Amino acid sequence: MDIAKYFSEKAGEVNACLDELLPRPGAGQMEGVLFEAMRYSVFAGGKRLRPGLFFAVLRLFEMDDRPYLPFACGLEMIHTYSLIHDDLPAMDDDDLRRGRPTSHKVFGEAQAILAGDALLTHAFNAMLQTAACAAPERLLAAVDYVARQSGAFGMVAGQCVDIVCEGRELGAEELRYIHERKTGALFCASIAGAALLAGAREEEIADLTEYALKLGLVFQIADDILDEIGDGSKLGKPVGSDKKNHKTTYISLMGLEEARRFGEKTAGEAEAALQGFGARAELLRLLPRYFLHRDC
Amino acid sequence: MDIAKYFSEKAGEVNACLDELLPRPGAGQMEGVLFEAMRYSVFAGGKRLRPGLFFAVLRLFEMDDRPYLPFACGLEMIHTYSLIHDDLPAMDDDDLRRGRPTSHKVFGEAQAILAGDALLTHAFNAMLQTAACAAPERLLAAVDYVARQSGAFGMVAGQCVDIVCEGRELGAEELRYIHERKTGALFCASIAGAALLAGAREEEIADLTEYALKLGLVFQIADDILDEIGDGSKLGKPVGSDKKNHKTTYISLMGLEEARRFGEKTAGEAEAALQGFGARAELLRLLPRYFLHRDC
Repeated sequence: MDIAKYFSEKAGEVNACLDELLPRPGAGQMEGVLFEAMRYSVFAGGKRLRPGLFFAVLRLFEMDDRPYLPFACGLEMIHTYSLIHDDLPAMDDDDLRRGRPTSHKVFGEAQAILAGDALLTHAFNAMLQTAACAAPERLLAAVDYVARQSGAFGMVAGQCVDIVCEGRELGAEELRYIHERKTGALFCASIAGAALLAGAREEEIADLTEYALKLGLVFQIADDILDEIGDGSKLGKPVGSDKKNHKTTYISLMGLEEARRFGEKTAGEAEAALQGFGARAELLRLLPRYFLHRDC
Repeated sequence: MDIAKYFSEKAGEVNACLDELLPRPGAGQMEGVLFEAMRYSVFAGGKRLRPGLFFAVLRLFEMDDRPYLPFACGLEMIHTYSLIHDDLPAMDDDDLRRGRPTSHKVFGEAQAILAGDALLTHAFNAMLQTAACAAPERLLAAVDYVARQSGAFGMVAGQCVDIVCEGRELGAEELRYIHERKTGALFCASIAGAALLAGAREEEIADLTEYALKLGLVFQIADDILDEIGDGSKLGKPVGSDKKNHKTTYISLMGLEEARRFGEKTAGEAEAALQGFGARAELLRLLPRYFLHRDC
């Protein structure tokens, strides 16, 4: 199975749907800059991993993708809003993302904050568009779950703790705590969110949540490894920035070799969480190693 | 009917429910500052007008209030998040709100941005808590409507245009455009949102939306009048700030007397929009004059 091809096909569908869902700047609009800023960051070349994970779980439950495209786009809008706000001067103060100037560099801080706010809000409209096909109770449960993973108990908490701990070295537990919320929570939203839409049983959701958290951790370990030894031209960003910024990473905590072993071990645990699903979970089972050994 | 008493009773119920719904800071939490910042702004003495409007419409449709308290709290969370972000240095740069230091003055800009993000996200969890009692299709429609009024086509668009137009005098149409989105949109969300939960007919929702927009305008005209001739000790903020900041208001556009007449005329139009509802709409019918003649 060609996973790169899977993600790139899904990304094509997601991009077309995002273009439909997002407000379109037009002549004479006073709020045109808001719509431009929303689109600028959404169409900045993201790989649409979260929608890809979401669809992989729908496939596991033998559900049709198409009707759920807007829900997947909602997940991507939440991810994008979080990047815009994380890049702000008051947060990580980043001038570049994926090789392009960040939102506040192009549109100013006020409009960047508002573009993030608007994307987060619009994500709920996008997810609720699936009301036409999804069973209402399942949709309500899935949207509630996505909000919980994105908010004060999930992604926003992760960014909060990241800021609180800024400038000091972290312990392994703290680093994990931040990653589980900053990355893991939205992986959970995508993976267990799809399972809720599919009407999965409680044990299935528990297994998939375990898988999502391990997969998020693998993703983050790979990120740290790539910043140490990756190819900047493939990554589209300079490598070595973690070391330069004295950021605690799995490399700084345990060294490159140990981080690699930890990545392999965690990937194995992610695969093991899928045991109950049998052959249907093939795609999901390949993802941890794929994420670990990616080069960009 | 004692309207002040109505709002203050409802505010008591809303405050108790908000306290239940919001995350509680506890010992050893790394994200405790986020929970504190969320609560600091939510419990800053707001009058809970939007929940009050929401309940007034439930009453119009003879619905029981109690089960919908979390939905009303969601509306208040959205209102609060918008105030936190509006006050940021990159936006209106306000140091004080309701006589207390603004969120970023107390918690820093990063945590203020995150507290706003978390409140907006948590608002959806709050609204979805009513899933236990509301008909699922109605709840889905109401949440979708609230998101639409709060986002890129509503409240966020209003703040965007406010920022875009900063520093120059506005025309009457521009001023109205901003008010309809910054204030009117969330009034609509509260009023028509409740009507959607009640399963109101399309014409009823159209009438209530018309009413909500006029009511929002009346509210804003009164705001402008109070800043000109109000009592700062009752308002809890210095008066005359609009003039000092060269802000376009209904006073600067048409003078005090004409603004008063415009307020009375608009209040009459709001009342007229309720014609179809008969005696059941008594409370709603009293609100435009109440808002126009308030002293704080």
